[in-house]
Amino acid sequence: MKSTKRRYWLGFDLGGTKMMATVFDKNFNIVAFRRKKTKEGKGAKGVLTRIVETIEEALQAAHLSHKQLGAIGIGTPGWLDLNRGIILTAPNLGLHNIPVKKELTRDFGCSVAVVNDVDAGTYGEYRFGAGRGVRCLLGVFPGTGIGGGLVYEGKLFRGSTSSCMEVGHIHMQPKGQLCGCGRRGCLETVASRLAISSEAGTAAYRGEAPHLLELAGTDVAGIRSGALASSIKAGDHLVEDIVRHAAKELGIAIGSIVNLLAPDMVVLGGGLVEAMPGLYVQQVRQSINKQALRPFTKSLRVVVAKLGDDAVVLGAAALAAEEVGRD
Amino acid sequence: MKSTKRRYWLGFDLGGTKMMATVFDKNFNIVAFRRKKTKEGKGAKGVLTRIVETIEEALQAAHLSHKQLGAIGIGTPGWLDLNRGIILTAPNLGLHNIPVKKELTRDFGCSVAVVNDVDAGTYGEYRFGAGRGVRCLLGVFPGTGIGGGLVYEGKLFRGSTSSCMEVGHIHMQPKGQLCGCGRRGCLETVASRLAISSEAGTAAYRGEAPHLLELAGTDVAGIRSGALASSIKAGDHLVEDIVRHAAKELGIAIGSIVNLLAPDMVVLGGGLVEAMPGLYVQQVRQSINKQALRPFTKSLRVVVAKLGDDAVVLGAAALAAEEVGRD
Repeated sequence: MKSTKRRYWLGFDLGGTKMMATVFDKNFNIVAFRRKKTKEGKGAKGVLTRIVETIEEALQAAHLSHKQLGAIGIGTPGWLDLNRGIILTAPNLGLHNIPVKKELTRDFGCSVAVVNDVDAGTYGEYRFGAGRGVRCLLGVFPGTGIGGGLVYEGKLFRGSTSSCMEVGHIHMQPKGQLCGCGRRGCLETVASRLAISSEAGTAAYRGEAPHLLELAGTDVAGIRSGALASSIKAGDHLVEDIVRHAAKELGIAIGSIVNLLAPDMVVLGGGLVEAMPGLYVQQVRQSINKQALRPFTKSLRVVVAKLGDDAVVLGAAALAAEEVGRD
Repeated sequence: MKSTKRRYWLGFDLGGTKMMATVFDKNFNIVAFRRKKTKEGKGAKGVLTRIVETIEEALQAAHLSHKQLGAIGIGTPGWLDLNRGIILTAPNLGLHNIPVKKELTRDFGCSVAVVNDVDAGTYGEYRFGAGRGVRCLLGVFPGTGIGGGLVYEGKLFRGSTSSCMEVGHIHMQPKGQLCGCGRRGCLETVASRLAISSEAGTAAYRGEAPHLLELAGTDVAGIRSGALASSIKAGDHLVEDIVRHAAKELGIAIGSIVNLLAPDMVVLGGGLVEAMPGLYVQQVRQSINKQALRPFTKSLRVVVAKLGDDAVVLGAAALAAEEVGRD
């Protein structure tokens, strides 16, 4: 039986560098939140402990007991077993076979949904952000990799046990660069933030991007979206060319997806988009319009995500709430 | 009110060269069917008249009156307005803005659904063929072009007003050949039967495919799937290379789709597949397995369609019946 006391939801965003727990009331208004650094390297147990701590602290900040929590939704990268709520492998987090759902259900005594972070972000934008109520919504989040999510007629599109919409692994270049997945020429190798940073860093090293060199050096790890945007503003034309080229390639890939799925809206989010909403999104939009067939682009909207860092926690909480509703 | 007499369905396949009307009983057993040549060039009115004649004759062969018909489902190529049942444009048939649903509803007094022919074929395989009951089924039909369809959790995936899954217009080659859609490097330009025939015809002209030259000449219009298969059997190694290369490219594109949609099954149908089920399908399967990510290929089945020419009429009839059920 449903307890009438369980009127709050908790959304969790498990990122490579930071984690965030946000408590929502039944209408998904933020009650309280808590952030921590993920601190890789402490192993699976360490990460799990920090997740539990962060949730506890968010609940305390909201003055809530465990019993008032209706469900927890965890958005996480990596390969997941959605049905059993297990992180099968998340290389960036150093996690393998972590039964998150089981652990958190035991600790907090409520329903727990483990979902892909990009799916959660897309669903968040669908429920509360730029794509509210859109019939077929494609979310694309270019970052270190390039993630995607699809909401079709109100429901997240998914595999039988896993998440899907691996936009970053669309084949683009017959003899392209080596991708993290082991194949050559995936979209991620030509259009991710990492691909851009690598190319821009090389240009900086050659002395062709003096502002970037000053702002961020030549280390790919330090060349973030903000630095790319600033160096373009300061006059590094080559960096602009590199970013535009990557955005164009992304648009070609999204154009192919549009030809397959005929979405009514594409929501673009993530660091690159936030740092360069004008230049980047305009280029992606232009490239989609060139690649996709006219009957599909006529009514297609390509927009910028609205929820920023809150998309994942909101989407994860809403998906967890949906699941409770279905039970 | 539903009439209890309306216990039969009619499926119609409107092809570029032939059309077929099949009458089914309520359990989708074939009662009677009728085929005619589409005879292009007689204009829209001519084609519509022939559609009506073919349906009438199929009904007569089944000894049925109009009043016994529950619904008509028409599978057709081209761009459609699914909601209003209009063929917006079907260049191969020389049709533009044909209100098929309105015309047939007037003539036969029953519900009419106008659906994309590849969608109908995929749905047919889902309901009655190789993909019965599969959670997420991708149908791919390489022919003159390359069509696709998707059935997800029991329902055909579609655009807001149009069909989608335009597999043939996935971008493959940055500087590829000109496609019928006006873009360069679409999958159709490297992997359709037309692309294969064009390359094989050139090889025949150069004297590198003697069996094909004898069997079918060098005219792309005459080099059909059967001739390709026969020439390979007779020893034209170059034709085999050409077919294998095209199948490999198709597999790469399907691999990208698998990375997006994580289907549980891919059904391959159409002339090429029917003529070379071994060689062709094996090559496509191998290429998908190389391109798609392991978590998606682990449980993926790649199979040959089972229904042949009946897939479209079965699927169209079943979709029309579904729509009546929903009304």
